[in-house]
Amino acid sequence: MDKEISQAVIRRLPRYYRYLGELLDDGIERISSNDLSARMHVTASQIRQDLNNFGGFGQQGYGYNVAYLREEIGNILGVNDVHNVIVIGAGNLGQAIANYVKFEKVGFKIIGLFDVNPELEGKVVRDLPIMMLDDLPKFLENNKVEIAALTLPKHNAKATALKLVSLGVTSIWNFAHVDLDDIEGLVVENVHLSDSLMQLSYNISQHKK
Amino acid sequence: MDKEISQAVIRRLPRYYRYLGELLDDGIERISSNDLSARMHVTASQIRQDLNNFGGFGQQGYGYNVAYLREEIGNILGVNDVHNVIVIGAGNLGQAIANYVKFEKVGFKIIGLFDVNPELEGKVVRDLPIMMLDDLPKFLENNKVEIAALTLPKHNAKATALKLVSLGVTSIWNFAHVDLDDIEGLVVENVHLSDSLMQLSYNISQHKK
Repeated sequence: MDKEISQAVIRRLPRYYRYLGELLDDGIERISSNDLSARMHVTASQIRQDLNNFGGFGQQGYGYNVAYLREEIGNILGVNDVHNVIVIGAGNLGQAIANYVKFEKVGFKIIGLFDVNPELEGKVVRDLPIMMLDDLPKFLENNKVEIAALTLPKHNAKATALKLVSLGVTSIWNFAHVDLDDIEGLVVENVHLSDSLMQLSYNISQHKK
Repeated sequence: MDKEISQAVIRRLPRYYRYLGELLDDGIERISSNDLSARMHVTASQIRQDLNNFGGFGQQGYGYNVAYLREEIGNILGVNDVHNVIVIGAGNLGQAIANYVKFEKVGFKIIGLFDVNPELEGKVVRDLPIMMLDDLPKFLENNKVEIAALTLPKHNAKATALKLVSLGVTSIWNFAHVDLDDIEGLVVENVHLSDSLMQLSYNISQHKK
């Protein structure tokens, strides 16, 4: 699977992956692009175009093999590997992230939870005792960590990201309300919750018109 | 301000709003598109095109009036109004959302927190006692609610959304890992955290190449 796939298709893949998982859960082994279209509210033509990138199935009169297609998409997305994740910022959001059992099902394993607040030290969240940020270098010597979720105030985010890069953690799932995309060597995925709420309020105002 | 603005511009507005707020915090009253471009890592031409939608400022040799531009963008996004929000699902994520002081600064006020788990009843989260979902109809009689944040398991999400619509709450900030976009009369903004993680893992795999 060396063919290059466009970013637009890639952004749609997690949703296909999710729907294919639901089909599997429902015991459905194969599905036509028309049926998938009706479920996903996407045109059948779009589905055929998107999934043609993973060629070799989706034959006329058969449809898609659900398990095979899901596996292929999972491989592209990298969810069939295990990614070790640490959470920096053990406040409410950090603890919520650490408690999300579901992430493990798609290959993301939370193995450490860090904060700077000494009152939180040793508090156990889902079998993980909260550690102090000063202990991070030592932790990273003994544990392979691929991703850091940043769930901390924005004024600490950039310095923490730079520290992570210097320690060899180069992928950040960023919940801090600040952009980190200009840091050299870092892969960043942002979850800007306030931006999402503003988008919602805009759409509400349009809906009322 | 009746001119229609494209969705692509609208999606970029929260980020402008955030940067303009940071400029104000730094005491900066006006800024050229070039300086804003350097801060935001967007071309100056893109900034001029985007902000021309809000005409009447951005004059040659003066630049943009930061406070005025922020106010205008805030009006478009509706963040200068107050939106009452309830949270359905008072687990870790729901409590994290309820505890986010920052949302109030952009006009979103959490006024109620609901769950179906009787063990949570009455537990206080940021001055709000958790209520039972059965109490929701009565609560809505006495409180104007515009938005419901759904932070509950996916198998309960659709039925809850339908119930909310029937009770007159027609805007949902959806954290459940399921699409609700096909429900008539509902405005939905999705935060699919697992999808975001998968996007990150894809980008990590590309970065390694």
